Parts: sequence; structure tokens; C-alpha cells
Amino acid sequence: MASSSKRPGSPAERLSAALKAVVGDRTGGLHEPVFGGNEKAYLAECIDSGFVSSVGAFVTRFEHELANYVGAPHAIAVVNGTSALHVALVALGIKPGDEVIVPALSFVATASAVALAGGIPHFVDVSTDTWGIDADLLRRHLSDCLRSDGASYVNKNTGRPVRAIVPMHTLGHPFDGVGIRAVADEFGLAFLEDAAEALGSFSGEFHTGLAGHAAVFSFNGNKTITTGGGGAIVTTDPELAAKVKHLSTTAKVPHSFEFDHDAVAYNYRMPNINAALGVAQLEQLPQFVENQRALHGIYQEALDILELGTLRSDTPGTLSNYWLQALLLREELAPQRDEIMTACLDNGVPVRPLWKPLNILSPYAQCPSADTPVTRDLYARVICLPSSASLA
Amino acid sequence: MASSSKRPGSPAERLSAALKAVVGDRTGGLHEPVFGGNEKAYLAECIDSGFVSSVGAFVTRFEHELANYVGAPHAIAVVNGTSALHVALVALGIKPGDEVIVPALSFVATASAVALAGGIPHFVDVSTDTWGIDADLLRRHLSDCLRSDGASYVNKNTGRPVRAIVPMHTLGHPFDGVGIRAVADEFGLAFLEDAAEALGSFSGEFHTGLAGHAAVFSFNGNKTITTGGGGAIVTTDPELAAKVKHLSTTAKVPHSFEFDHDAVAYNYRMPNINAALGVAQLEQLPQFVENQRALHGIYQEALDILELGTLRSDTPGTLSNYWLQALLLREELAPQRDEIMTACLDNGVPVRPLWKPLNILSPYAQCPSADTPVTRDLYARVICLPSSASLA
Repeated sequence: MASSSKRPGSPAERLSAALKAVVGDRTGGLHEPVFGGNEKAYLAECIDSGFVSSVGAFVTRFEHELANYVGAPHAIAVVNGTSALHVALVALGIKPGDEVIVPALSFVATASAVALAGGIPHFVDVSTDTWGIDADLLRRHLSDCLRSDGASYVNKNTGRPVRAIVPMHTLGHPFDGVGIRAVADEFGLAFLEDAAEALGSFSGEFHTGLAGHAAVFSFNGNKTITTGGGGAIVTTDPELAAKVKHLSTTAKVPHSFEFDHDAVAYNYRMPNINAALGVAQLEQLPQFVENQRALHGIYQEALDILELGTLRSDTPGTLSNYWLQALLLREELAPQRDEIMTACLDNGVPVRPLWKPLNILSPYAQCPSADTPVTRDLYARVICLPSSASLA
Repeated sequence: MASSSKRPGSPAERLSAALKAVVGDRTGGLHEPVFGGNEKAYLAECIDSGFVSSVGAFVTRFEHELANYVGAPHAIAVVNGTSALHVALVALGIKPGDEVIVPALSFVATASAVALAGGIPHFVDVSTDTWGIDADLLRRHLSDCLRSDGASYVNKNTGRPVRAIVPMHTLGHPFDGVGIRAVADEFGLAFLEDAAEALGSFSGEFHTGLAGHAAVFSFNGNKTITTGGGGAIVTTDPELAAKVKHLSTTAKVPHSFEFDHDAVAYNYRMPNINAALGVAQLEQLPQFVENQRALHGIYQEALDILELGTLRSDTPGTLSNYWLQALLLREELAPQRDEIMTACLDNGVPVRPLWKPLNILSPYAQCPSADTPVTRDLYARVICLPSSASLA
């Protein structure tokens, strides 16, 4: 086997050159949207209809088509993924002072949504296989850390009830939904899937978002499909769906003219104009996923020979949307992560690391946490690569 | 003076017929947007640019042009008016357990934003002249109700600090900004203007939003201009502007690739596609306001002869945008308010009452409140009339 030291150039130079060959002269972000369908037509139709705001035919259509695609009966469209997580947690009954289990490896929204609901994130580690919460580690941690007070499970150290779990499908790769569901049921936890990155990803024949009590998707500009800004809550539970919709629309009590509101609530509904964009994007989703999966093949060919590490591939039994392509550097290259990324950025190739672990961010550093060595290791070694569907 | 009983028909029939003559065969809402400018062109330009999400040239342009129009140096565009109020309150230092003075007469967002920040709304009455908070009543109420503990003013009854005041420019008519600012300064209150309804309204030569420490505008679909859903915080204070922007963009610390966030924060930024719509709408704002003011003249002519009450006209010294036209029924007609509204609605004329007073809504009924007889009276007697700019 050829040693990497025999190839010319430093790891930084070699990766930068290989990625540049894939990206070419394109400039722009790590994951850019593709507008190749009915975007302009539907936006014009939306303007002509006069309905651009929080009520309109495109909102209904987007919700219906999203629910159909995922395979759940209910979808509620909201302004973004953070808001989706927040209102879902409140609808699931999270109260101020409750702890919520969250992976240390995620975008900050997973933790901030808990905080917005008045809860306290309680961090756990992820699996080396899925990069999402590890069901076995989770069971062990909760068994050590919680005691039942009859009505619910309580953190022995803080005395606070632990009410919910929000695992995240990291970079689009599905976590072990069945395994986590079993642990959630065992400890009486509400189970909200943070599927912000995972539209178009499947575990076996099931789309992500069907293992928990509800799931949240994001349609930010850097996601597989975009509504400008947007998110959605998907669930099989009609009561939960009604509650989410009520709380995301100022809790207004239906009446022909009276303004009555029966709860402290949010103005989180997705505007019709954003949904118009979303309907056009949903029509192209299968093609986007196909391209993102094809891009994985392109990277495999370009990067394997460099022997810098391992390209993140499907976890067995799953089909990822490959939202972000990721290279896991060999252990000894971890100290060069920033040097390698800087070389790529200097060469006009957009790359980034994983998110700084949530349990070391200043606003959450005092929150309860399991030891999280896998998160630390992935954070030290992963480089996310240019991932736009247009690259394949 | 001709008694109204001499005219044929009940008050309900007469108002319904007079409004129908103005509205004609149009169907739709109380205040519908007009898209007569560059809306489609800018949306198409936005799609072509690839930037539809929370960063983009239209967001910057919308903020710049809005700030220019209002006459303040800083504007930060966010997803809606409720979010704008929420993040502004947090940036102004409102902490869980603080009381915030709010008019009993407002849309629910004024109270829910306080609750979202962890605060407790403390309701006061409005003025018969402005329909916004009455500065004299306010001073009397606060003098009775608060005591200084040296560092701040505390509600004698609840023991909680009273930290801020959020008066609202009702239906677009400016409140007494100078008078309220004097009281706010006297009691050390942060002063946030809820100008959600008041874009295009002036007190003397000054646009609304310049009397307080900051002001919030809304661009919901029913407002004078719309971004689909949207809001903005406007301020003359550069530090406050920077804080609002940081908190509304996940508190991400600037870095070329690292994801670090230094506060519990929000994902509230307005997407570029909504801002594109907003830029096109802002270009037409002077015309919209001119039309809304002309509509007031049309109603004056159509309704004065009915002698059912008083059409809401400019408070002396102010120029309203007449966002919602409003008829204040004669006192003896108050019991017929719902019958009159139902007749209008049955005749295809969109009308509505004012908002149910916030201090009797179930989620806020236990919050501190002054007596609010003016709010009760206005709620009992006001009917809001069709107000789209396209009607003039």
C-alpha cells in the first residue's frame, strides 16, 4: 500500500487541489440552492393571487406534499428549523426547568430551542457509526444518571425532570431511530427528531422523521431544498399536529371577527411566498438527492487515492441524502485540520469543520453533560466539503 | 339636527349599504396588499442571484431604505413583528420576572413578546385622543403603583422590577411619544415603540419610532407594506442595533469557518426573498399612504350623514397612515356592535372589532393591570372598516 508521504505536496495542498478539480471556478457557499424548476412561476402566481402572507394555497400545498413525501399524515410549515424545534418542544409538554437530552454534536439550534422553551439541554455523545446519538451509550448514561420518582425520571444530580430527547440526523445520515425509540420509551421521554438536515434520507424503507413522536425539517438556504427561510414539524399524531398549529399561529381561537387567544403563543407560520418557493423545490427534491448521492461517488474517486482519511459513506441499512459530504481525517492529521481548511478556503474551495461541540459553547457549558469523546474526536477530524447538488 | 331614526333602515343596514357602495364587488380581507411595482422583477432577480436566505443584497437594501424612510440610522429586518418585539426586549435587557408596561388595547403580540422574553405584561389604559397609552394616566398609575428600591422601580404589589414600556401606535395613529418618553425617563424604563401598524405615520415632522430607544415595524400581509411575513427593529443606538442583529442571528461569533455562539439566541433574520418583496413595496409606500389617507375622505363623505358615530381622524399634530379606518359608534349603539358587523360581513363587507382587551385574555388575565375604562369603551364601540390602499 502506497504511503501518503510518497505523494507530492502536503495534505493541505493535496486536498485543496483535489477539491478544486471538482468545484472548478465556481464561487459561493458550501451548499448552494439550485433553482431549476417552477420557482419564478410559482412566485409570480403567488403575487398575482394577492396571498403572500401566513394564509394561502401554497402553504397548504407545501404542507400536504411534504407530508406525502415523508410518509406522515401531518406537516405544519413554520418560519425556520429553530422555531419548528421550539414550538414542537412546547407542544410536547416541555416546561421551564425540564431537562432535554440533546447530542453534543449538532448545530446550535438543537440546544437553543430547548433553552427558548425554558428547558435545560443535557448533552450526550454520538455513535462512531451514525454520528447521531448512540442508543447503547444513551441507555447506559440514563441508567446511571436518572432515578424514577414515580411520575417521571429525574436527574439524580440536578433534581430536575428529564422529559424529552432530540437526536439529530447529522449531515443527513440517519441515526438509529428504533434503538433510540426503545430507550426513550423506557425512560418516558418525548422523542423529537431533529431532521433539519435529513430531508431525502431513509432508514430501510422509512423516511427519517417517523421513529419519534414528531420530527423537524429545515428549509434554510443551505439545505437540500429551500424556502428562503423555513421549517416544518411532521408527525403522525393528529392532536400534536393541531397543538403545534395552534401554538404557531398566536393561539387564536377560531371566530368570524373576534380576536381571542387562549395561550401564550408564537407567530411562527411560514408565509405563502416562502411556501411557493418550497413547492417548486419539492418537485425537484428526488433529483437533488440523486445529484448529492452522485457527488459522493465523485469525491470517493477523487479523495480515496489521497489517503487523507475516510469519506463519510452510508451507514449500513440507510440511504443518506448526503446533505454535507464529509471527510474524516486520519487521526494523526487532526492537528492539521485548520491548516488544511485554510488552504482550501484560500484556493476558493468552501469547506468547514463540524460545529464546535455544544457542551463547550459558553451559554451551554454549565449544562449537564455525559462525557462525549466521540463528539470531540469527530469535531477534531471532520472537514465538510462543497456539497451543492449542482456539483454532480 | 336630523335624528338617525328618521333615516330608513336599521344602523346595521345603513352602515352595511354605505360600506358596500365603497367596496363594490371586491371580495377579500380588511386590508389587502397591492402589488403594482417591481415585486415580480425583484423576486426573479433574487432567484437568479441564488441568494434567497438570511444573507443577501435585498436584506441589506431593505434595511437601508427602511432606515432612511423612518429617519433612523439603523434597521434590522427579522421574520415578523412578534419576533422583532421579542428580540428588541431581550436586547433592551428584559430578564425573566421583569414587568413590562403594555397597553390593554393592542394586538396580542405586544403581550406575547413580553411573555416570550420571560417577562410579565403590566397593563395600562389608553387615551381617548390617541388610542395609545395616555401619558398622564401612566404617570399617575406608576406613581401610585411603583416604589424605587434605589437601583430600579419595583411594583409595590408584586415586588417585581418594572423595566420597560411598549406603547402601540393604534391603527397607525401616533401616540404621544414626547409625553410617554418623559414618564419613561422619570421611572427609568426602556421605551420600545410598537409601531407595527404605523409605517408612514408622523408626529409633527418626525416619523413614528423615533421617540423611544427603539421601535418595531411589521410587514405582515395585512400591513401598509408587506414582505409576506416580516418585521424590523429601528433604532438610533448603534450598540443596541448590533446587539439586536447578533441575537437575531444565533449569536454566532464572526469567524471564517468556526461555529461558535456566545449567547442563547434566536434565528430571526428575514430571508432575502422576503426582503426582495419588501424593497418593491417600500418604493410604493408614499402612494399607499396617500391612498389610505384619501380613503379616509371617501368614508367621511359616505358615513357622516349616517350619524352612527365618529370616523377616526388624525389626532391634532399627527398625520396617520390610516392603516385601518375605524368607526367609533355612538354610545347607545354599542350593544348593536356585533349585529352591525354581522350585517356587513353577510353583505360581503369585511369589518372587525378592535382586539379583545389583553388584560381579559385567559393567558394574561392574572397579570398586573390598571383599571382600563377607555380600552373597554373603545373595544365595545369601534368597528374597523375595509382599508386597502386599492379602495381609493
